[in-house]
Amino acid sequence: MTVRRQRPHPLGLPGSFGPGVAKSRATQEGGRRPNEFDRWLVRRIAVKVGQPDVAMALWDHKDAYCPTGDCRGRIVFRDRGALLSVIVSPEIGFGDAFSAGRIDVEGDLVDVLARCYRSTDRAGAVAGKRTALGRLPRPRSNTKTGSRRHIQHHYDLGNDFYRLWLDEEMVYTCAYYDTPNATLEQAQRAKLDHVCRKLMLRPGQQVIEAGCGWGSLALHMARDYGVKVRAFNISQEQVAYARERASREGMGDQVEFVLDDYRNISSTCDAFVSVGMLEHVGVQNYQALGQVIARALRPNGFALIHSVGRNRPTPVNAWLEQRIFPGSYPPSLREMMAIFEPFNFSIIDVENLRLHYARTLREWLARFDRAADTVRAMYDEEFIRAWRLYLAGCSAAFFANSIQLFQVVCAPAGNNDVPWTRAHIYPETATR
Amino acid sequence: MTVRRQRPHPLGLPGSFGPGVAKSRATQEGGRRPNEFDRWLVRRIAVKVGQPDVAMALWDHKDAYCPTGDCRGRIVFRDRGALLSVIVSPEIGFGDAFSAGRIDVEGDLVDVLARCYRSTDRAGAVAGKRTALGRLPRPRSNTKTGSRRHIQHHYDLGNDFYRLWLDEEMVYTCAYYDTPNATLEQAQRAKLDHVCRKLMLRPGQQVIEAGCGWGSLALHMARDYGVKVRAFNISQEQVAYARERASREGMGDQVEFVLDDYRNISSTCDAFVSVGMLEHVGVQNYQALGQVIARALRPNGFALIHSVGRNRPTPVNAWLEQRIFPGSYPPSLREMMAIFEPFNFSIIDVENLRLHYARTLREWLARFDRAADTVRAMYDEEFIRAWRLYLAGCSAAFFANSIQLFQVVCAPAGNNDVPWTRAHIYPETATR
Repeated sequence: MTVRRQRPHPLGLPGSFGPGVAKSRATQEGGRRPNEFDRWLVRRIAVKVGQPDVAMALWDHKDAYCPTGDCRGRIVFRDRGALLSVIVSPEIGFGDAFSAGRIDVEGDLVDVLARCYRSTDRAGAVAGKRTALGRLPRPRSNTKTGSRRHIQHHYDLGNDFYRLWLDEEMVYTCAYYDTPNATLEQAQRAKLDHVCRKLMLRPGQQVIEAGCGWGSLALHMARDYGVKVRAFNISQEQVAYARERASREGMGDQVEFVLDDYRNISSTCDAFVSVGMLEHVGVQNYQALGQVIARALRPNGFALIHSVGRNRPTPVNAWLEQRIFPGSYPPSLREMMAIFEPFNFSIIDVENLRLHYARTLREWLARFDRAADTVRAMYDEEFIRAWRLYLAGCSAAFFANSIQLFQVVCAPAGNNDVPWTRAHIYPETATR
Repeated sequence: MTVRRQRPHPLGLPGSFGPGVAKSRATQEGGRRPNEFDRWLVRRIAVKVGQPDVAMALWDHKDAYCPTGDCRGRIVFRDRGALLSVIVSPEIGFGDAFSAGRIDVEGDLVDVLARCYRSTDRAGAVAGKRTALGRLPRPRSNTKTGSRRHIQHHYDLGNDFYRLWLDEEMVYTCAYYDTPNATLEQAQRAKLDHVCRKLMLRPGQQVIEAGCGWGSLALHMARDYGVKVRAFNISQEQVAYARERASREGMGDQVEFVLDDYRNISSTCDAFVSVGMLEHVGVQNYQALGQVIARALRPNGFALIHSVGRNRPTPVNAWLEQRIFPGSYPPSLREMMAIFEPFNFSIIDVENLRLHYARTLREWLARFDRAADTVRAMYDEEFIRAWRLYLAGCSAAFFANSIQLFQVVCAPAGNNDVPWTRAHIYPETATR
């Protein structure tokens, strides 16, 4: 395997854990047989993860430890350092060691991780809770400057990179599988329509979108629902792509892509929509977001917030926040209410699409794996392993019910034009 | 008008405000012309209510004061005492004086009250907030004994009374008008089906219902969905009625009506449902209710809570809590989460049926008005006026968006049998 590092990968992984180093270490430890201390460390890790039904093996591949006596899949620790780093900091230690190739997973990665999430949740044990790293103030604060840095870290990896494994419309949020056999492409289009139907868009209306990704929803709303859209985003790469696309599709008059923070939104609208931005907002800014919506939304308008969430407030996975999504935090529904309550918004609809995101992420992982050679040419093996862990880990967390996907629709208190039923969201129900 | 008081009405209204007294006072003040102080009191009241677009007149019926210059409907104060009691305690003062006939409303009662609610909300002024009565600890505590007393106060008024103006199934909760021209009867049946579809009931399942009213939902679930139901209620009159009905309909084997508090539920179930009970539970008991659901619900089950709610925590209307629903409190969605979060429930669906309850209550009011002579024979004129105010006031509050109606569906964290879409709730969409 040739590791070609075309550009430095942006994960901020500790350099000494690079794949070359990991390889040599693995070989090195491979010469030493694991001893009783190593096996004791494995059992300690199993306790920390809540005794999952996943086997755990050491670098000799012998005598794998199965906490429940009935295990599927196997986690292989390739050196004692990997064991120790998971003990010290379960989330960051595991993530970094996996990325560096010092931990391997045999079997289906999503399934193995889901088993671990389930046992952790069952045990009520939040990994990393009691470690020094776990006490660090996380997530990081999302000031306007901080937000820009955090968003660029992830979303400015390059459009070429995301194009390798997203759908053709470049939708980087939970799809909606309204029929069992839908492809990712169909499910993403169905999601865009699902959002538009919930907002009850009518031709000629004005829509503000906060956090517009590569512009797929904005363009879809304008093209298929005849609305005018102002779409905000602080990722330069995404806005450049979206603008180019709007111009190419002749939609420049109907859709304006604005490179700016949601806090600077000042115009008014009939519908306010934000799909997959709230995770990056931070609880301390929810009231500011509510203020923006209250200022923007006309009396008979609707707002829709689509976000990863939680059953209850839970610390964000430390590795994910450190390496993949700095400043991110998925809120509980109760925490989300800090957006709406101060401004007397009426919640009119909440839907949980958790299983849809589990499936979306699994599909992204499959496409990412198929594009692995190209990604390797752009970054390196460590980047690939880290992104596999991120995609598989999130799919697993949705499947295991550790995280949720909430679509929340609200209306200003005075709005009596709310729909009497939600049947309009399901126009083709009887024809299926 | 002959006031026949067949049995003492149960509102606990101050005796001196009885209709006979009110009449004579009205005559008395009628002899005195209102002076500048009386007119100043009217303007103070208008400020307290946030300057509604409703005219306010005194007992001379002259020079009605219109706060906005463009008013519809008219509130008539029949004596200075009525003005003062509204100043001292806007909610209790208004409610008691209206019940006693010392305040009249000309025009559509629901519409006039809705205008007042809207202006109050707009002004951000919560009537009664700063009065001595407003500071009383309300709502009263719902211990098991307290709950029984509070529930009997309202629901044990007598089945004969409720039969006069409820639908034939005796459903005393928000109906669901799934088609614009539905009758109350059709809308109540639609509501029962709406709840059953959300719970995805399957034949043979076991259901626990907490707060079952006169048994209509329990019997409907058993009859139309083939489930077995244990239905709990602490209203003796309601349980007696429900048992008699189950026996008459030959459903005794499938439905058991239990005269007991929800906190004593100990069996397990596939579905847990509670329609219109949470308003009487009290925020301090939400975790206890969540504990009951967590203990009862099997891993692949669903729970549905249907309750009056709020956009944000707001003191309960003092008159309603004192005279109509002791111990009641409609929570915000954030407050409701205290039921679910501690037990790691996943919220999978929230729907707001506010306008449906506005319409349901308006229909009840119309039927109540048609039955007024019979009600008068059972109670007295003051009771009738108080109940008209209650029914119209609640309809107005739903219409004005002061109160909400939330249906919340949740599942235990481990339940992956959640539906992928909500299309099953709308089976007839395309055929309408």
